[in-house]
Amino acid sequence: MEPRSRGAAPGGVSVSAVLPAGGSGERLGGATPKQFCAVQGRPLVSYAVRAMERISWISDIVVVVSPENIETMKTIIEKYGHNRVTVVEGGITRHRSIFNGLRVFAENEFSSHLLQKPEVVIIHDAVRPFVEEDTVSKVVMAAKEHGAAGTIRPLVSTVIASAADGCLDHSLERARYRASEMPQAFLFDIIYEAYQQCTDYDLDYGTECLHLALKYCKTNAKLVEGTPDLWKVTYKRDLYAAESIIKDNLSQQVYVITNVKETLAQVGFLLPESLKSQIKVEAISISLSKNDSCLQSIISGQCYNFVCVNDKRWAIQETQELVDMLEKSNIPLLYPVVLILVHLDIPENNSFSIGMEDLTMIKKFARETKKKNILVYGLLIQYK
Amino acid sequence: MEPRSRGAAPGGVSVSAVLPAGGSGERLGGATPKQFCAVQGRPLVSYAVRAMERISWISDIVVVVSPENIETMKTIIEKYGHNRVTVVEGGITRHRSIFNGLRVFAENEFSSHLLQKPEVVIIHDAVRPFVEEDTVSKVVMAAKEHGAAGTIRPLVSTVIASAADGCLDHSLERARYRASEMPQAFLFDIIYEAYQQCTDYDLDYGTECLHLALKYCKTNAKLVEGTPDLWKVTYKRDLYAAESIIKDNLSQQVYVITNVKETLAQVGFLLPESLKSQIKVEAISISLSKNDSCLQSIISGQCYNFVCVNDKRWAIQETQELVDMLEKSNIPLLYPVVLILVHLDIPENNSFSIGMEDLTMIKKFARETKKKNILVYGLLIQYK
Repeated sequence: MEPRSRGAAPGGVSVSAVLPAGGSGERLGGATPKQFCAVQGRPLVSYAVRAMERISWISDIVVVVSPENIETMKTIIEKYGHNRVTVVEGGITRHRSIFNGLRVFAENEFSSHLLQKPEVVIIHDAVRPFVEEDTVSKVVMAAKEHGAAGTIRPLVSTVIASAADGCLDHSLERARYRASEMPQAFLFDIIYEAYQQCTDYDLDYGTECLHLALKYCKTNAKLVEGTPDLWKVTYKRDLYAAESIIKDNLSQQVYVITNVKETLAQVGFLLPESLKSQIKVEAISISLSKNDSCLQSIISGQCYNFVCVNDKRWAIQETQELVDMLEKSNIPLLYPVVLILVHLDIPENNSFSIGMEDLTMIKKFARETKKKNILVYGLLIQYK
Repeated sequence: MEPRSRGAAPGGVSVSAVLPAGGSGERLGGATPKQFCAVQGRPLVSYAVRAMERISWISDIVVVVSPENIETMKTIIEKYGHNRVTVVEGGITRHRSIFNGLRVFAENEFSSHLLQKPEVVIIHDAVRPFVEEDTVSKVVMAAKEHGAAGTIRPLVSTVIASAADGCLDHSLERARYRASEMPQAFLFDIIYEAYQQCTDYDLDYGTECLHLALKYCKTNAKLVEGTPDLWKVTYKRDLYAAESIIKDNLSQQVYVITNVKETLAQVGFLLPESLKSQIKVEAISISLSKNDSCLQSIISGQCYNFVCVNDKRWAIQETQELVDMLEKSNIPLLYPVVLILVHLDIPENNSFSIGMEDLTMIKKFARETKKKNILVYGLLIQYK
């Protein structure tokens, strides 16, 4: 396979990623493994894949799932338009799954084709949906220099050791210790060597890749302070927490787009006035069209939310063009774009009336765009 | 002060509680300290107080807040009708605040009156809104027997120690360690002795009460496995997680109450039919009245949610009676009761029409009942 041309990785190294996604989600208390649970209608694993995928210098993303979930994963990849993803069958433990993922870069029999071996491999989690390029970049740089690197976070609770009788043995001084989080990164040869060397006990009962690199390759990983959003979705409440992070990360800018008519002009004026105490808002009066350079500059300027006010029945086709532009602009849509369609129903405008057919069409449109992480909401205002 | 008569504590000991609530909430990233942040419109600390208060055998609840928040705390106590609560001024660290809280039971000058010294004192957190009586009871029993006890949870992430150069020194074997959570409980004399003995360094930099009991009183605390809901609200996302726990804990039973009329009979039949796939639903046709033994048995049977269907303008007064009954029944309202008022607007019924005045009244009613943890929602259905 030819290496694809991409943005340069930090330090000019070649980088790929392995995402173990084989967990059973026991602690979540549901039948669905947590990586396949939906947050805002999209499975967690899709967020984690997207977080890697939008980093242009990551070549391949290997997702490791248990045998019974391979079809589910392939469906997710197709539905949400992921690319650069290779699905690999996992083992019965986390370490065995990661090992299988690494083998795809080194051993012919572990995939339909051998992927190009990267200099640095990132190991992330399917249940850590949010990670910024900056963090990944720091970990990769540190791995290049030190052989291994991992993100850490301060401990939230004091950690204690219990004695055999179920009583406190001792408590750890909180300041000296850290929680080990993901992503981690390694020189491929180091972590692959560690997995080849390690014992069955390690593969069955261990969880920490940094530990393997230390134990078998004498590599002391560099520790990189991560952001709070790196936490792992573990309990059901974490699914709600994930939703809140998406809400917090929505762009705080909104553009109001109107195709100027007399009535619309007024709405186009009042709406920004009443919104502007809450959010940064700009109003432009344009007809949506593919060649509109104004819109393209808005999109590339990272203004991701739109209110489209119109009084035409077929405005949805114009909106489709906006969606196409968003898609083509290659914006890294880890967090959703919000698109609010406001239809003004004005009695004198006879050509306009919303019927069941229109509603069905709008719903279908919203369902389709949702897969692209564009959330469409409709609002019908009747003028009397 | 006379000891109040209450339900018997486990093991027949006298029990009180101290809740440190002096934190600044830096990690939450907002201006409001996290214990005063609202979840479903109510400050976190009010949930934690309620969780203690609904346990009948806890005599006094001492809430320790920083000087600038004493008035805020007193307002919360009044607004949400908390009783058995004494507000005490905290110190500059968590340990100093807890020490101040304990002093109220032992030294005259720390409150307007000396509270009766309990045999066992519970130490909980203002930012752990949910704790069940069963857990508190286990911790108190264990404290009575062992002198000290604390709840624990499995570690979510591996814990690692870093070396001076910012690299991994070693990782801990996850199975051997636990996260130390709250509530904890102690024989009062043991923990008070520990606080009196401990150094300024302990008071300024320590966080773990179990550690003080071990270090200064040679008491190895008994460790008690807690529920996942004991986690500490630390980040903004945890506020959303707390809301999700409230939703999960809402009663899954709903009673539909109608004052039978011809039109209502139909609604009263259709509603349960369409709801019953989602929730356990019973329909009764009664007029709300204080003496209705049927309703009282529903309330005492722990069915907490109601849909009241009516076509009368003044149904709100009847609903007020239902709210009064709920209050008088002394149900431990840690999780909200949901009350949905459905008004049917039927043209031939001339006496009924909802105006702004009515809406204002319903809103005011809903605001008042919310303080009692009863959430009122209104739904107006127009028949054409």
